Amino acid sequence: MPNWLLPENIADVLPSEARKIEELRRTLLDNFRLYGYELVMPPMLEYLESLLTGAGRDMDLRTFKLVDQLSGRTMGIRADMTTQVARIDAHLLNRGSVTRLCYAGSVLHTLPSGLHATREPLQIGAEIYGHAGLEADAEIQELALASLALAGFTQVRLDLCHVGVLRAIISDDPAAKRCEAELFSLLESKDVPGLRVITQTFRPATREALLVLPGLYGDAGTLARARADLGSIPGVAKALDELESLIRLAGAASITVDLADLRGYHYHSGVMFAAYVPGLPNAVARGGRYDHVGEAFGRARPATGFSLDLRELARLMPGAERKRAIRAPWGNDPALRAKIADLRKAGEIVIQTLPGHENDLDEFDCDRVVVADNGNWILNTLA
Amino acid sequence: MPNWLLPENIADVLPSEARKIEELRRTLLDNFRLYGYELVMPPMLEYLESLLTGAGRDMDLRTFKLVDQLSGRTMGIRADMTTQVARIDAHLLNRGSVTRLCYAGSVLHTLPSGLHATREPLQIGAEIYGHAGLEADAEIQELALASLALAGFTQVRLDLCHVGVLRAIISDDPAAKRCEAELFSLLESKDVPGLRVITQTFRPATREALLVLPGLYGDAGTLARARADLGSIPGVAKALDELESLIRLAGAASITVDLADLRGYHYHSGVMFAAYVPGLPNAVARGGRYDHVGEAFGRARPATGFSLDLRELARLMPGAERKRAIRAPWGNDPALRAKIADLRKAGEIVIQTLPGHENDLDEFDCDRVVVADNGNWILNTLA
Repeated sequence: MPNWLLPENIADVLPSEARKIEELRRTLLDNFRLYGYELVMPPMLEYLESLLTGAGRDMDLRTFKLVDQLSGRTMGIRADMTTQVARIDAHLLNRGSVTRLCYAGSVLHTLPSGLHATREPLQIGAEIYGHAGLEADAEIQELALASLALAGFTQVRLDLCHVGVLRAIISDDPAAKRCEAELFSLLESKDVPGLRVITQTFRPATREALLVLPGLYGDAGTLARARADLGSIPGVAKALDELESLIRLAGAASITVDLADLRGYHYHSGVMFAAYVPGLPNAVARGGRYDHVGEAFGRARPATGFSLDLRELARLMPGAERKRAIRAPWGNDPALRAKIADLRKAGEIVIQTLPGHENDLDEFDCDRVVVADNGNWILNTLA
Repeated sequence: MPNWLLPENIADVLPSEARKIEELRRTLLDNFRLYGYELVMPPMLEYLESLLTGAGRDMDLRTFKLVDQLSGRTMGIRADMTTQVARIDAHLLNRGSVTRLCYAGSVLHTLPSGLHATREPLQIGAEIYGHAGLEADAEIQELALASLALAGFTQVRLDLCHVGVLRAIISDDPAAKRCEAELFSLLESKDVPGLRVITQTFRPATREALLVLPGLYGDAGTLARARADLGSIPGVAKALDELESLIRLAGAASITVDLADLRGYHYHSGVMFAAYVPGLPNAVARGGRYDHVGEAFGRARPATGFSLDLRELARLMPGAERKRAIRAPWGNDPALRAKIADLRKAGEIVIQTLPGHENDLDEFDCDRVVVADNGNWILNTLA
């Protein structure tokens, strides 16, 4: 096997793609900043227990493990940055007030999430800590939609759900609560026969409500059906109100609601959303409320946020134009060096031709050239 | 042990520091681009053999190893990005012409290089492939000095050496060539007694030249001494000429030459430099020529480049000023939302106060506030 082959689902990013990713990264981080989000940079590796705190079994299987030669303890390479940022909020910043944080960095997965999925997403995201109200969820949803708009995606579909609906349905039924994990899984796959079996020992009201849930998906009108079927269960109405507010604030995005699709529930505690754009079957951005992650670090703080994979989003964007540039000869003449420095200061890309490479083709679109003219260095147009 | 503690020599980067690092990252990458360098993003992990190709034993010990669950093969987390970029030049771009590439990303080390050194440097660098002449080395040196100047460091000391001097001295002496690795190590530590022992079986001329080398350090005048002592050895004069040209092009940097300090020699093949700034005993930037790395990937290309740790450099820079910002109330009034959007479009940071948090202190310096005034939203100054 040639030694320059990369592992499966791992890839280099070449210049044209890298430039797109870098520009998108800057645009999104700058926009986060305009909303008051402060940038943090958590490390690539941590002790396993802090990395996997409250993160569930999926994340454990996705995380590469290493032995720390300094302590002998097991470390993990981050597979997700959200718990890291929650740890920073809880212990490093330790503020009482609302804290808005954002981040961008590589994460690694032991196995790809799909046949063509990368094992090295470039995760970018934003989180609000310290506010339990819907206003924070609304700001995060706005920021996610604004991020997609800045990437050029205007036709966005927003898929909303709320962990609170299921939690409210089972809250008074001990038999159902014991089966929470199985219920989430059966609901996610809309496995109604499976649901019929598992709910046999539940209270009749719980059973009835759970069997209704898989049918509660579709456009925003789904909320009215949910209200008719489940609205009398304490807690459900509040969750549906929250979803309704978020739909009102979703602007031009087309809305779908699916009250049974609760992927990642062990982490989330309230509204959850997934954003889709044309050309990609999977969600490009995911977000929602996860109030309990900080608890594991000894400081429970309400939390809501979203993240997306910059590489995947950039891949869907049109290619950037080749950038215009200026060619210049190599030389020690101070006047030449000053001319080149001035051009660069003015924002021009100036590529010095190295001796012997005068006829190389540049990857840049060199449309001008610096030439000597009666002892002065001037700019000429290239054919 | 609390679960929010990080492993030794691993740290979070908090907002004020993260902002400095991010700004420096952008400034340096933008400047690389003005010189015609194209950005590439190699992966965090590769099969071990491609990562360690031509990289020497140091790099092997520094590299975290993992098992690939897809192939069962051993992968490494990159501890340095230079060989990765050489692989991209050799196999992915595969151009005949001069190629200028740049990169920025985290690397991980199993052990810190010093007591306080991070195990997660944020490496940024630039490389020229395809030109064996000194002009390419000069451009890289210029770019390294320009990078430090952009970070605010004007008092730079540049330490120069040249692997070619030692290689020329031992090239005709088989006994000496067999001891190359030991020689490099003894010279680096200026271990003259050790050199006396190991050189006993060498030719007298080789021995004499090797024993002169540890004394050849100091200011730029060192080159004249080296010429007098070693100039007659074929190949040495050319190496000294190259160093002299680079010194001429080093501008305001103060120069030291040390012909025996050849750290990282197994990788380098020509001129090598290290840049120092006040306040830090270790080099902040290192660079040089390494023509043979591409060979291992089946395509030998002349190569020269430099890199530095963005985190370390940013740490030495003065803290950034707190950024001015505007506070705004939370609300669904379209006029308020439009006002906030306009302010953000104009580049202002606008932080919406979440209900119940009206008296929170912001990390930003909020000096203005959006208030309602007769049905209009206007901007007021905050005391």
